[in-house]
Amino acid sequence: MKFDIMRDRLLNGLNDVMKAVSSKTTIPILTGIKIDVTEEGLFLTGSDADITIQTFIPVEEDGDQLINITETGSIVLQARMFNEIVRKLPTNDVEIEVVNGLQTHIRSGKSEFHLIGSDASEYPLLPEVSADGSFSLPADLLKSIIRETVFAVAASESRPVLTGVNWQIQDDELVCVATDSHRLARRKTKLEQVPTDVNSVVIPGKSLNELNKVLEDSTNPVQIVITSQQVLFKTENVLFFSRLLEGNYPDTTRLIPAEFKTNVTINGKSLLQAIDRASLLAREDRNNVVRFETFEGNIVEISSNSPEIGKVEEQIQVEALDGENLKISFSAKYMMEALKAIDGQDVIIQFTGAMRPFILRSVIDDAILQLILPVRTY
Amino acid sequence: MKFDIMRDRLLNGLNDVMKAVSSKTTIPILTGIKIDVTEEGLFLTGSDADITIQTFIPVEEDGDQLINITETGSIVLQARMFNEIVRKLPTNDVEIEVVNGLQTHIRSGKSEFHLIGSDASEYPLLPEVSADGSFSLPADLLKSIIRETVFAVAASESRPVLTGVNWQIQDDELVCVATDSHRLARRKTKLEQVPTDVNSVVIPGKSLNELNKVLEDSTNPVQIVITSQQVLFKTENVLFFSRLLEGNYPDTTRLIPAEFKTNVTINGKSLLQAIDRASLLAREDRNNVVRFETFEGNIVEISSNSPEIGKVEEQIQVEALDGENLKISFSAKYMMEALKAIDGQDVIIQFTGAMRPFILRSVIDDAILQLILPVRTY
Repeated sequence: MKFDIMRDRLLNGLNDVMKAVSSKTTIPILTGIKIDVTEEGLFLTGSDADITIQTFIPVEEDGDQLINITETGSIVLQARMFNEIVRKLPTNDVEIEVVNGLQTHIRSGKSEFHLIGSDASEYPLLPEVSADGSFSLPADLLKSIIRETVFAVAASESRPVLTGVNWQIQDDELVCVATDSHRLARRKTKLEQVPTDVNSVVIPGKSLNELNKVLEDSTNPVQIVITSQQVLFKTENVLFFSRLLEGNYPDTTRLIPAEFKTNVTINGKSLLQAIDRASLLAREDRNNVVRFETFEGNIVEISSNSPEIGKVEEQIQVEALDGENLKISFSAKYMMEALKAIDGQDVIIQFTGAMRPFILRSVIDDAILQLILPVRTY
Repeated sequence: MKFDIMRDRLLNGLNDVMKAVSSKTTIPILTGIKIDVTEEGLFLTGSDADITIQTFIPVEEDGDQLINITETGSIVLQARMFNEIVRKLPTNDVEIEVVNGLQTHIRSGKSEFHLIGSDASEYPLLPEVSADGSFSLPADLLKSIIRETVFAVAASESRPVLTGVNWQIQDDELVCVATDSHRLARRKTKLEQVPTDVNSVVIPGKSLNELNKVLEDSTNPVQIVITSQQVLFKTENVLFFSRLLEGNYPDTTRLIPAEFKTNVTINGKSLLQAIDRASLLAREDRNNVVRFETFEGNIVEISSNSPEIGKVEEQIQVEALDGENLKISFSAKYMMEALKAIDGQDVIIQFTGAMRPFILRSVIDDAILQLILPVRTY
C-alpha cells in the first residue's frame, strides 16, 4: 500500500470516523482505524462495535486530484495516535506507505513516522444491510428530529430500551419518541416516500448524538436503511451504522392527556430564562424543582425557594391564559430542555391539574410534543 | 444599604474578585463576596486567605453615572450564587437592597431574588501594606514576566518554596527565577525606579497565574508593593494581594553553566513543532523523552522511539551550529515550555555535553534564560 493525500482531506475523514472509536473498547483491533486504499479512493473505518462509521475520500473530486495511489492495500493503525500524527504533520502533503506487511511510514516534509500497524483482515466486516426498508430525509431535518427528542432518553440503564429513541412508521409519518418515564418528547415528520417492512425500532441515544455531530447542516439527503438489528444512515461519502436496541418499546400514546383544564400561551424564551434564574436557587436543594402559578390578568409567576439560601420570584405576562387557576411544581431541567427543543417561539402549555402530566407544543404546529410529569410540593 | 448599578459593570468587577474565591476554603465567610457601598462607590472583595482581590467601581466615570446610591452599607453574599444570579438577570439595571440586617433583595426587571447575607464585620480585613518597597511596571510587561517564568515552578509541595517564583532586586534589575529542580526559567527586567528595602521574596505560582488573568494587556502601570509577608499589585481599580512563601529560595546562579561546547542557533517555532511531533510517540512511554542529535551541514535531528508503537525522525536545518557534535535527550514537555516562553523567534541553545544542563535564550537579548537538565538515555 502506498499513496499520497492532502492532509486536510485526510483529517476531515478521520474526524468523522474518530467519533466511533472508543478508548474503552475491550476488542483490541477496534482501538485502530482501518485504512483501505482501492482504485476508487480511500476508505477509513472506525467502530466501537455499537457504532461503525466509514468515510470515503475519492481519488478525484470536481476535477481536483485528492489522492495519488501508487499501490492499493489495507492496514489498521492505532486511531488516536494516527489522528494526532496527521493533525501535527508539518506540510499539507502526506505520503503513507506500508512495507513488509505491517510497517507503516508516514512522511510529510522532513518528518517521518514509523508505526507498526495491525492486519486489516482482523478488522470486523461492516454490518450487512439490504435497502428494503429505506427512506430519506434532508440532513438538517434529521438533525432537528434528533435534537428535539434525544435529550429525553433515560440516562440510566435500569430499563435499557428507554436509553434509545423509538422510531415508528405510522401511515405516512415517522414518529420518534423518547422518554425516561418522567418526561417524554415526541416528534412527527411527514415522509414523502414511505418504507415498507419497517414498523418500530429503537435507536440508541448515544448513536443519534454521534450521528448529529457527523451530519452537516445542509439539505443534502440522508438515506436511512432500517433492518432488524441495524440502522444505516448514508450520505454522499459517509456510512453511519448503529446497532438497534432489543426489547419492546412501551406504548406511550395512553400517557398523553387529551383533555385539559388550564391552557397557557407564553413566549418560550421568556419562560426559559425565568426558569433558568429560578433554578439557580432550586439547584441548591438538589431536586431542582421550581413552582409555576397562574394569576388573574394573564400573569404567571415562576418561583423557587431554598430555606438556607433564599428565594426568587418572577412574574411573566403571558399571551393567553384560560381555564382553572393552577399551582404546579416541576423539574427546572426537564422544562428547560423541553422549551429548548421547541426553540424560542410561542408555546402552548396544557395542564390537567397539579398532579397530572402536562404537555408543551409550539403555537405553529403539532409536530413536536413535550410531556412532563409534575412534582408534588403543594 | 441600597443602590442601583449597571449589571455589566457589576459583572466585570465580580469576574475579577471571583478569581480569589475558592470552593475548597475551610473558612465559611470566604465562600462569600464582601460588598461595601460608600459615598465614593462600590468595593467588591474576594479571598481564599492566600490571595485577596478587591475591585472598585466608582459612582461616576468619564461623566457617566455607574451607580446610584440610596444608602451606604456592607454585606457578604454567597459568591458563586451571587455571581450566577447577576449573570442571569433579565435587564442591565440591578437594584440591591439590604433590609433587617442581612436580608438582601436583588431586583432586575420583573425578577426578584431574596438572599440571606452574612455580617460584613466578620469578613477578614485587607492585609496591611505600607508603600515602602514600591515600584511599578506596565501591565503587559508584568504579564510577560509571569508567563516566561511561572510555568517552571514545582508542581509538588515536597519543597514548598519551589512552588513560587523568586523575585529579587539586584542593582537596578528585577530578577525573577522559577525552578522545579529539573529546569529553570529566569527573567531579568531593568527597573526605572528601584525600590529600597526589598531583597528577595517568593511569590506563589498560583497567585501569579491568577494575577495574570486579572491584569489587562495594556501599558497601564501596575504598582507593586512588597512587604515581609505580602505583596500587593495595584492597578487603577483593582487591588491584588498575595501572601509570600516562607523559607529561603536556593541560590541558582551556580547552576547556570558559563562555558559551552556546542552552540546551536535555530528557529524556535520549527524546533517547537518538531518536538511536539516527536513527543506524540515519546508520550506513550510516560517519560516523554525525545532525542536531539547534531549532524554535519547544520542539521539537527529530533527523534523518539516507542518500541511497541513505532518511531519518528525529523531533520531541521539550523541557522548556525558550532562546537562538538552532540547526542542528547531531554523532556519534550520542558523543552516545549521553554521554547514557548522565548516565543517563536530564533533561539540559541548552548550545551556543555550530553549529561550537563543546557541553556536556551533568544538571539535578540539575554533577558530570558531557560535551563533544562538532560535525561540519560545514550
